[in-house]
Amino acid sequence: MIQLYIGNKNYSSWSMRPWVLLRQAGIDFAEVFVRFDGFGSTSQFKAALKDINPVGKVPVLVHDGLAVWDTLAIAEYVAEQFPEKQLWPQDRAARARARSICAEMHSGFTGLRSACPMNIEAQLPDVGALALRDKPAVRADLERICSLWSGLLQEHGGPMLFGHFTVADAYFAPVVMRLKTYALPVPTDVAAYMARVCALPGVKAWIDGALAEQDFIDFEEPFRLQR
Amino acid sequence: MIQLYIGNKNYSSWSMRPWVLLRQAGIDFAEVFVRFDGFGSTSQFKAALKDINPVGKVPVLVHDGLAVWDTLAIAEYVAEQFPEKQLWPQDRAARARARSICAEMHSGFTGLRSACPMNIEAQLPDVGALALRDKPAVRADLERICSLWSGLLQEHGGPMLFGHFTVADAYFAPVVMRLKTYALPVPTDVAAYMARVCALPGVKAWIDGALAEQDFIDFEEPFRLQR
Ligand SMILES: N[C@@H](CCC(=O)N[C@@H](CS)C(=O)NCC(=O)O)C(=O)O
Ligand SMILES: N[C@@H](CCC(=O)N[C@@H](CS)C(=O)NCC(=O)O)C(=O)O
Repeated sequence: MIQLYIGNKNYSSWSMRPWVLLRQAGIDFAEVFVRFDGFGSTSQFKAALKDINPVGKVPVLVHDGLAVWDTLAIAEYVAEQFPEKQLWPQDRAARARARSICAEMHSGFTGLRSACPMNIEAQLPDVGALALRDKPAVRADLERICSLWSGLLQEHGGPMLFGHFTVADAYFAPVVMRLKTYALPVPTDVAAYMARVCALPGVKAWIDGALAEQDFIDFEEPFRLQR
Repeated sequence: MIQLYIGNKNYSSWSMRPWVLLRQAGIDFAEVFVRFDGFGSTSQFKAALKDINPVGKVPVLVHDGLAVWDTLAIAEYVAEQFPEKQLWPQDRAARARARSICAEMHSGFTGLRSACPMNIEAQLPDVGALALRDKPAVRADLERICSLWSGLLQEHGGPMLFGHFTVADAYFAPVVMRLKTYALPVPTDVAAYMARVCALPGVKAWIDGALAEQDFIDFEEPFRLQR
């Protein structure tokens, strides 16, 4: 049985990726919730992960005693274990492109990521408008995301980035959440893709879980004093 | 024929990874040098990459008209194309572990990366000693690297991290360069691994190329006025 250690659904963008991947692909797994009480060395969060992941982060996938950490390594592992799910595009060139953009996400988009942290439950359109007005890096990231998605949707004909659902859609699902929370302006084809992503059962289940949480974690809330 | 776009060998840690991977594995490729004249929008660097990589970074691998960017996507692509080279460990668990640590490197070790940028030609032991003294993040990164390498060398018996040469060794080769340039203290088993990495023909060829370069790039030289 696969176990997936995750953080708070409302805040943990990295946890969302493999959770959505597994759930949307119909792969059975048990979720292990590790609450974000803090990331300091004395936090219960770090204590809970201590014996599982030397890096002390979520997500971690545990399968038959084997711990796999980091979203990209988890995605490769799951894609290998369940080839019938076609989690990467079948075409060699499309697969290489999908991996390129996932890796780009993995170490990039820092402008958007730091200005607009994931917060599914919140509505923060003014924060988004100010970030766009004042931060060139946010504008550049938004532009890149829109041209990337538009281009892929056109090339593969939708409904997902590479036609059917793949790791790439799971990987960009938290970005869809940010664009919504901060009401960043996007062209219609991108808005339509975002709506389709939100309607995926695997994504909807995560969003429902995030909305059901009652936690308000100060250090994940740079823009609010309360819900 | 595979083409690999790379930056200055003395400075470009990301370029080093796939170059060493291909060369050490004996895979034929042509190197395309894109000099680091700057990373601004008017740089020749960005102009040279404009039509190849929308992200505007090196490395980029181009194969039969297909552009693959980002070191991790390149590694997966090359491993898929040349399965006989066994670029990932053959064992499922070891392969998952190798991917975990490569992904960890890809988005982590920011303390070491920002305090000790790669500079193969330079000798900067005092900078290293000060970084260790003053920066807890550098100490934490060094500790993690040593325990990671020691553990894997012990588990797999060496000479490389997973026994034979894999993506993981190529991925950590630039870290070996940093530890040397900044003379960071490491236990003997780690020092021995570092010496073995430097002696790999693929790594040696990169180092020789770096030493042969005459470029001194100010924005890559926070610690020197000249060679
Ligand atoms: N590169 C990692 C990033 C994981 C990550 O940063 N997770 C956050 C939660 S969303 C975390 O656990 N942070 C704890 C910490 O930074 O100490 C991945 O792709 O899995
Ligand atoms: N995540 C990328 C990082 C590539 C990267 O940052 N490359 C540097 C050179 S070592 C670069 O091209 N920088 C140009 C820029 O930042 O504009 C990878 O793994 O390939």
